Formats: sequence, structure tokens, C-alpha cells
Amino acid sequence: MATSVLVLGAGAIGAFYGGILARAGCAVSVVARSDYDIVSRDGYRIDSVHGDLSFRPVQVLRDASEWRSEADYVLVALKQVRGVDRAALIRPYVSPRSAIVLVQNGIDVEPEVAQAFPANPFISGVAYSAVSRLAPGVVKHHSQYTRLVLGNFPSGTSEAVTKLAGLITAGGSNGVATDDIVGARWAKCAWNTVFNPVSALGGGLATHDILGSDETKAWVREAIAEVCVIAAADGHALPPDTPDKQIAGTLRMTNYVSSMGQDQLAGRTMEIEALLGNAVRIARRHGVAVPKLESLYALLLMLERKGVH
Amino acid sequence: MATSVLVLGAGAIGAFYGGILARAGCAVSVVARSDYDIVSRDGYRIDSVHGDLSFRPVQVLRDASEWRSEADYVLVALKQVRGVDRAALIRPYVSPRSAIVLVQNGIDVEPEVAQAFPANPFISGVAYSAVSRLAPGVVKHHSQYTRLVLGNFPSGTSEAVTKLAGLITAGGSNGVATDDIVGARWAKCAWNTVFNPVSALGGGLATHDILGSDETKAWVREAIAEVCVIAAADGHALPPDTPDKQIAGTLRMTNYVSSMGQDQLAGRTMEIEALLGNAVRIARRHGVAVPKLESLYALLLMLERKGVH
Repeated sequence: MATSVLVLGAGAIGAFYGGILARAGCAVSVVARSDYDIVSRDGYRIDSVHGDLSFRPVQVLRDASEWRSEADYVLVALKQVRGVDRAALIRPYVSPRSAIVLVQNGIDVEPEVAQAFPANPFISGVAYSAVSRLAPGVVKHHSQYTRLVLGNFPSGTSEAVTKLAGLITAGGSNGVATDDIVGARWAKCAWNTVFNPVSALGGGLATHDILGSDETKAWVREAIAEVCVIAAADGHALPPDTPDKQIAGTLRMTNYVSSMGQDQLAGRTMEIEALLGNAVRIARRHGVAVPKLESLYALLLMLERKGVH
Repeated sequence: MATSVLVLGAGAIGAFYGGILARAGCAVSVVARSDYDIVSRDGYRIDSVHGDLSFRPVQVLRDASEWRSEADYVLVALKQVRGVDRAALIRPYVSPRSAIVLVQNGIDVEPEVAQAFPANPFISGVAYSAVSRLAPGVVKHHSQYTRLVLGNFPSGTSEAVTKLAGLITAGGSNGVATDDIVGARWAKCAWNTVFNPVSALGGGLATHDILGSDETKAWVREAIAEVCVIAAADGHALPPDTPDKQIAGTLRMTNYVSSMGQDQLAGRTMEIEALLGNAVRIARRHGVAVPKLESLYALLLMLERKGVH
């Protein structure tokens, strides 16, 4: 029988990996909200550098009441919004055999969900995949350099991890199993925790403007170095050349506005805690000073508060 | 003969002190650009808590070619914009007997101008005066707590200083002569150097939103403490309770958007260097770490660059 996958939060990332897993032979269902009408009629149209990943889900659900099946993998690609109880959102779709897979950004995003499902296999995933949602049900995938790093939380791998990584690779992308998923999260945070907040605080600043002068480049380097200091204190030291490599890599990439900058421009909620607040709290726990990240965090909280009024 | 005053940069501050000095019996002329037509026809309408300060300047100038007179005081209330040569703007209005009076915000704003006029009396001024320009030629002055602190740069007072302070007081406001004008600048920077940049980075954040949570209040307190550290290293220590007093005072005042926040909202140039960049450079010179102010500075430079594109 085909591996059964339920994708919860079928935005660009969820739809993309749904398409990859469908091509790997999985029976993929999705929970779609705003895109329900179009996706239930036409399925997803996914134009990818991996080829055409368009697919029609086995089932398109509006909400949990329509779910009568059992998933081998419940793939959670929800945005992490303040005050939303992710465990409660996930629970109706989880059966005893379901492995829960978090494909979400940031650091320390697992405990809340992992603790809510102590009997289920739990997988944490870090996605490198430049995808964007062009229209309801329509996704574009831009980058050759795409991979999904998967591991158990807080460490180790399992059969459920290696099987899922294999399915991602079989579907034409790159699935990688790691013993140190937290380290993989820190490696991604080296970019995310700095460039995303800065983009939002600049009112939707693009990467090349962020790195537009020696003065700002030096500051970005030091801010990334603060992320490295937290990662090391947390037991997951990053390579010492991480700040320089992140900056050089960003300048080689196309100039673009990161997700938090786009959220800010569009008046949408930002993933402040997952991307930054959790990192700051880990720093405080370890007693390491990260004044640049503390500044970004305080400024984002002010910015968010302004949106509230 | 009446004391002759030329006001250069007749925005809200320039018009307000022009009105005060006119009421003190000075012969006040102004250089007006965007407001030239209305001011040359109707004079200024200034509604102040000190009473009606409306006045008709002796001469309203469009530019320096119209200036045939000599001023005892050339009062400079220009906005400090990157790349503008203030000395060159001032020079045509300065005669050997003119005292140059800078009524401008920020720190270390004097040397460039003072050095350009080594033979003239030079006065530095720090204005506390809640004024706004409601329309061309129309100014509103809100606050009882208004004073203009005046002194020679870098320290001391002179007859020109005490005479001008006396004229301000005679005109119905408060003129104060100080031996330590740089200390007075640092005292004002304790607020300006933090609240102005934060307001701009928040897309025009108001003061009470900046102080909206314990988390952001704690950050603001530490950022003000960094200003105090620079001031002390620069030989002008501020009272140790400065951060707490600034925060408490700001919460007592009306909720409002500071000038840099208003500039950012309106797409106007911000006074980044005078209010923040100069303070950061003084810190670097003294080898004191001010990572929160460095963060604000880097972020403002990015924001400014975005405006340029």
C-alpha cells in the first residue's frame, strides 16, 4: 500500500513537498483553506526546477471533520503565529501510527508539539527550497539548491526519518537524514535570524540593500556572529567562517525580499518568535550577550505592536 | 539700534524663535524657501503657549543675493541633511560682526561650521520647544516646558551668549546660558538618539508604542544607558537615573511620533548622522561598545539606502 501523507498548511512549501511525495508514489492529501475551491477542482500546478510537479491530492480537506483516514506522515507546514495552538490544530489528523513532521522555520519550534504527542514518531525538518505561491493552487520553485534535512528531535534518526528522506529523494528532490537536526536549524538561523528581521524593519528591504555598504555589511557580520555564539553555547557550534560565507552567498544570490519583509509589506503576521525570539531566549538561558539580536527583537515587538493598533 | 537677527531655515523652530526675538524688539529677517510667497505677503502666524507670536519679518529673502544688510546674529535652524555644505549656505549672510548661532539637533554638529568661521563669535544652541508647522507660514507651539540652552562651543559663555539668552527670555520664552553646551547636547541625545531612530525603524512608531511592553521598555532603557556611556567617555557624564527619567517622562507626555519617524513616513531625508551617527563615531573613538546604537545606526543606513533606489 502507498505511504499515506497528509499536508497541513498547504502554502508554497507544503504544496511543493506534497508534489514531490506524490511523484514518489505517496497518497497525498492536503488541508487547504483559502485555496480550497481551486485545489479541489484543479489540484496544484507546480512549476519546479525539478520538472512539473503538478498533482491532484487524494483528498482535499476544508477542515478536520472531513478526515476519515490515517496518515503515515502528517506533514506540518503551517506558519507559526503567536497564540496559535499548533498541537490542537494537528491533533484531529493524528492516529497512533502517524509520524508528525514539522517543516517549519526557526529554532526551538519542536518542544510544544513533540510534548503533545509523546507516543508518536516525531520528525523535525529544515527546508531549503526557494518556492513561492503565485496564485491560489499555483506554486513556482526557483532553485536547484533544494533540500529537506530531516531528523528526530532533539537528535538521532529513525526508520521513519530515513524512509521519508528516501521518499523526498525518490520524488526528484533531495532528502537528507541528520543526527543533529538542532544543528541544522542553527545553520539555517545564521541567515534567517538576521536577514528576516532586518528586512521587516527596513519596511521590506531586499538582501542587496541590506548589504549595501561596508558599514551595514560589518554590522550584519557581527549579528550573524551572535547567532553563532548562541549555537555554540547551545552545543551546536557552527563553522567559524559562517558569517562571511552567509554574506558572500547572499550577494551571489538574486536580490530578494525575505519572507518576514514580505509579511511586513503585506500587513501579515510575522514569525517573530520562531525566527528570533526563541534564539534570544536561548541566549539569555545560557547567559550569552547578543545585543544586536536583542535590538532586532525589541524593534520587531514594537513594530508588531503598531500593527495591532 | 535694534539687534539684527537673520533666521536661516525658517521651519517651525526658526519661525518660533524669530517670533520670540521680534517680540523682544529685534529686527528679524528670514530666509524662506517653500513658504516665501505666503510669508512675504502675510508674515508668520504663530500660535504659542507664550501667547500670539505672529510677526512680519523686516525682510523675507528668497536667497542670499537679496541680502544687503548685516546681522548681529545669524540663527541657523536648517535641517542637517547628508552632503549639504552648511558653511557654504551660511557664508553669504555672515559679516565680520555676526555671531553664528546653530539651533540644530544632535551631537558634534558644530565643528564643521565653527571651523569655517574662525573669526566670528560662534554659539551652539539646544532647543526644547514642541513646535510644528501646520501650513506654510503657520506654526503651532504646544508646550509650557520650552527653553533654548545656549553656550560657546566647545565650552564657556560670552557676552554674545548671555545677550541672546536674555533676548529669548525678554521675548517671553526661556533662554539659558550654559558653560557646558556639549553636556546639554548629550542630555538631549539621551532621548533623541534612541526614540528618533526607533520611531523611523518602526515605520513612524509613536512613543507609547515604543514603550508598549516590559520587554521593549527594558531595551529602550539599555539603549539610553549606552548614550550615557558615550557621554561619560566624552567627559560629560549624565545623571545615573537618566534612562529611567527619560522613560517615565516620555510616558507622561502625549503619545507622539518623533521628527525622524515623521520624516520616514513622509519620505523625507532623516537627520541620521547628527542624531545618531556622530554619537556612534564618538563611541568608537573612545573604544566604548554601544551595540544597540550600532544596530540602530546600521538599520537606519539600510533604510535610507532603500529610499535612494
